[in-house]
Amino acid sequence: MSDAYIMTDTTRLKRLAKRGTYDREMVHAILDEAPLCHVALMVDGRPRVLPTLHWRIGERLFIHGNAKNGLFQAMRQGAEAAVSVTLIDGWVLARSAFHHSANYRSVMAVGHFREITDIGELKAGYQAMMDKINPGRWAEVRWPNEIELKQTAMMAMDLVEVSAKVRTGPPVDDAEDYDLPVWAGVVPLTLERGEPVKDPTPRP
Amino acid sequence: MSDAYIMTDTTRLKRLAKRGTYDREMVHAILDEAPLCHVALMVDGRPRVLPTLHWRIGERLFIHGNAKNGLFQAMRQGAEAAVSVTLIDGWVLARSAFHHSANYRSVMAVGHFREITDIGELKAGYQAMMDKINPGRWAEVRWPNEIELKQTAMMAMDLVEVSAKVRTGPPVDDAEDYDLPVWAGVVPLTLERGEPVKDPTPRP
Repeated sequence: MSDAYIMTDTTRLKRLAKRGTYDREMVHAILDEAPLCHVALMVDGRPRVLPTLHWRIGERLFIHGNAKNGLFQAMRQGAEAAVSVTLIDGWVLARSAFHHSANYRSVMAVGHFREITDIGELKAGYQAMMDKINPGRWAEVRWPNEIELKQTAMMAMDLVEVSAKVRTGPPVDDAEDYDLPVWAGVVPLTLERGEPVKDPTPRP
Repeated sequence: MSDAYIMTDTTRLKRLAKRGTYDREMVHAILDEAPLCHVALMVDGRPRVLPTLHWRIGERLFIHGNAKNGLFQAMRQGAEAAVSVTLIDGWVLARSAFHHSANYRSVMAVGHFREITDIGELKAGYQAMMDKINPGRWAEVRWPNEIELKQTAMMAMDLVEVSAKVRTGPPVDDAEDYDLPVWAGVVPLTLERGEPVKDPTPRP
């Protein structure tokens, strides 16, 4: 398998193409680190966007949710989806207002989700989801029963039309602005895991 | 002005409606805390989603970017947009796989972006953007000149059709699962600002 996704007319980056990459390893790393994605879809001719948890197994991106979700219905009817996964890594403070920016790593994937119905695939899917949230979690929890599996839809998209965009490093100002007496640099932003808080709820 | 946005057929929450709110103060707080939004739009009949910085002035949501951006072109031609702003606050680890979840605060806004062209509004817009990134920043930086203002488009959407969805607190398991010997609780997630890193670049 090639190290990079093949650029298509759909995934060719038009703005700030120098920040673009089609590198599989980079795409995988972003997808695996980010807790959530945004899925855009047309539903009844109108744009809709769904924030939802996602996970990855190899070259497939998974989401899940209520089986009756309107976006999933549209997917079953063949609607195309655009998925965005975005990690913000810092505020970029330039000397000029114009060159302020953010450091970020983002992935865009376009394609069709199909429903996972095979029981083995469903279990492997939930295992991957659990282990993304907390490594080893799948081995500890009570697994889904038949009713729960029916209430929930799991959808997967093959990673084929995919691109990533990454900005790193300090601001880039116009040459004449470097003399201005303005603090410039990066304020890092990181999503931190805090101390776990045990559920205080007694058995109902 | 009412304390809440009016629920419409478009913004009526269909899934987990108990987590929904139309409270203005909550919506504003989520919009102001989140660094970025995802804007979904149809472009040439296909769904597209753009991750971008946003900010708010009163009841208007602002974004900006390259004036030639395809999504902005579609907005100018009257395309409807759906905007999602999502903060993830924690992983919710239940005793059962099925009841795993995330704590989050999210806003959905639907409507039309219009382009800001008035020079006064543009300056007020950039001031609000700068001051969101770093309070007081606007007073320190070199302001945009005419060329920079022309290269960049600023778009605003009135906050009319808006809803929020919030999950907080511990997992909610099925009664019989509370006896299972499984750790359950919440792993908090917070977006932390790190120590600023000064731009080491010498004057070019």
